[in-house]
Amino acid sequence: MSTFEDLYPSRDIEEPLLIERKEPVFHGNTLNNAPISEAQLHQYDRDGYLLLPNLFSQSEVKRFLAELDAMQQDEALLATEAAVTEPESQALRSVFQIHRNNALFSQVATDPRIADIARFILDDDLYIHQSRLNFKPGFNGREFYWHSDFETWHAEDGMPGMRALSASILLTDNTEFNGALMVMPGSHRTFIGCVGRTPKDYYRKSLKAQTVGTPDTASLETFQQRYGLRSTAAKAGSVLLFDCNLMHGSNSNITANPRSNLFFVYNAVSNRVVAPFNGNTPRPEFLATRETFSPLLAPEPQKKAV
Amino acid sequence: MSTFEDLYPSRDIEEPLLIERKEPVFHGNTLNNAPISEAQLHQYDRDGYLLLPNLFSQSEVKRFLAELDAMQQDEALLATEAAVTEPESQALRSVFQIHRNNALFSQVATDPRIADIARFILDDDLYIHQSRLNFKPGFNGREFYWHSDFETWHAEDGMPGMRALSASILLTDNTEFNGALMVMPGSHRTFIGCVGRTPKDYYRKSLKAQTVGTPDTASLETFQQRYGLRSTAAKAGSVLLFDCNLMHGSNSNITANPRSNLFFVYNAVSNRVVAPFNGNTPRPEFLATRETFSPLLAPEPQKKAV
Repeated sequence: MSTFEDLYPSRDIEEPLLIERKEPVFHGNTLNNAPISEAQLHQYDRDGYLLLPNLFSQSEVKRFLAELDAMQQDEALLATEAAVTEPESQALRSVFQIHRNNALFSQVATDPRIADIARFILDDDLYIHQSRLNFKPGFNGREFYWHSDFETWHAEDGMPGMRALSASILLTDNTEFNGALMVMPGSHRTFIGCVGRTPKDYYRKSLKAQTVGTPDTASLETFQQRYGLRSTAAKAGSVLLFDCNLMHGSNSNITANPRSNLFFVYNAVSNRVVAPFNGNTPRPEFLATRETFSPLLAPEPQKKAV
Repeated sequence: MSTFEDLYPSRDIEEPLLIERKEPVFHGNTLNNAPISEAQLHQYDRDGYLLLPNLFSQSEVKRFLAELDAMQQDEALLATEAAVTEPESQALRSVFQIHRNNALFSQVATDPRIADIARFILDDDLYIHQSRLNFKPGFNGREFYWHSDFETWHAEDGMPGMRALSASILLTDNTEFNGALMVMPGSHRTFIGCVGRTPKDYYRKSLKAQTVGTPDTASLETFQQRYGLRSTAAKAGSVLLFDCNLMHGSNSNITANPRSNLFFVYNAVSNRVVAPFNGNTPRPEFLATRETFSPLLAPEPQKKAV
């Protein structure tokens, strides 16, 4: 058990809980040398996300996709736990820990166009809590139900507080047709404590289809009424930055167009994971950095990325 | 076995087939007394569908929704085969034959705002081949995979040719978020013969999730490239008219907003079903009118509906 106070109880509770967020969204206190505009910061703070169109060039995207193809052929990689398939087929759904098991993507993780913004918003040294390559295949890509990533990272990984954010780099055009991520803007201000104990080794199942740690429908109705829905459809090369507690999900994809993205979770070094709350066994290293912890090297100060 | 020639072989074939449509889309030969504009007719002919925004008033929609609520409480109705539930829950998915088992909806089936257009396009006396109320519940509404309705009506019901159309009356707002119907405009010009024999009593399963009579992915890739994708998102009260062979489908619905619609299939009396091709046992009456066949009474000539 952790000696930290559990600010956000979940799973081991009798009734769903709505808890106001304790931490700020922007952890800094100055706009000096900000890598984003004041308007962009305000938007991120208010909505819990920021869409940066075409941050990566089409030739960079091409290079990433070629690497993705190579990974889909890499049988040694596919045999590892880090490679997760669709629940009803052998199609690849995710490859985890790409900041360690892939040279190209470990570079992307430290790319100042993203990392500088994360460092600015979280106002601390950073490390990668989790990274992955997501595929949503054409024709039978399954939905991801509504969830807050922080709920899982907190309950299953022991991430103490909300001082983390995700960067999703779109490798394919995300449209209203192929299951673009839907978000509830502003929902990052409220935590939903979810009912339902975490089964042992639950991650093996939850990575394919999550049922524990998902909010109850009454809370989701409240949230949708309070915050509304917004699509984050955007072109390949765009980057979606979003707060760790933003409520998000996506519908299935029956179109011919796969939906793929790179996904990096930046956590503040001061928010490093502890022993999981509720005494749960921690998830393995490929899902949540613990033993292999190492801060990202801060590069020389950059000009504005966007 | 039917003595008609099977113009559109499907199911009992070795390889997928793409067959050019034999029949016209607009079966008439004059625009005199047309209930839609020439531009609308051209659009329907070209795209295979026509969206008529707000054809029914909000108070009519309210009345339909109240009737829907009553049907969801009607245990006698729920116990019949005409009531179909979701594959993974007891949530109601469809109620069939509403033009016979519900007084209000049998009136709607003959409403001149729809029926006159259907009669004009099909240029014949009409009858209702199938009718239903569709619910796509919030949070766990499943997708409908790509299909042509005609493929099923032809292969399983013995509908000889393409002289039928559907009218979908939206009872809830259909949005990009809650699984609005996606169509491939122009796809009604080509028939995809699907591989895979029809199992006995297949309709019991297919109404929940169709796997036989769905096109192969290579044909769908060709179709999507050739015809593209379009959303038919629209407000409650709008009507979507679409040709029997239009390729359509919809993604899942994880939002809180259910998606409901009334659905009437108008078939030309001259295109009445025969013994199903391939010698299949016909589907029951609640899915395909055969024994209870009776032409809709043509009302007095109306002014333009839209």
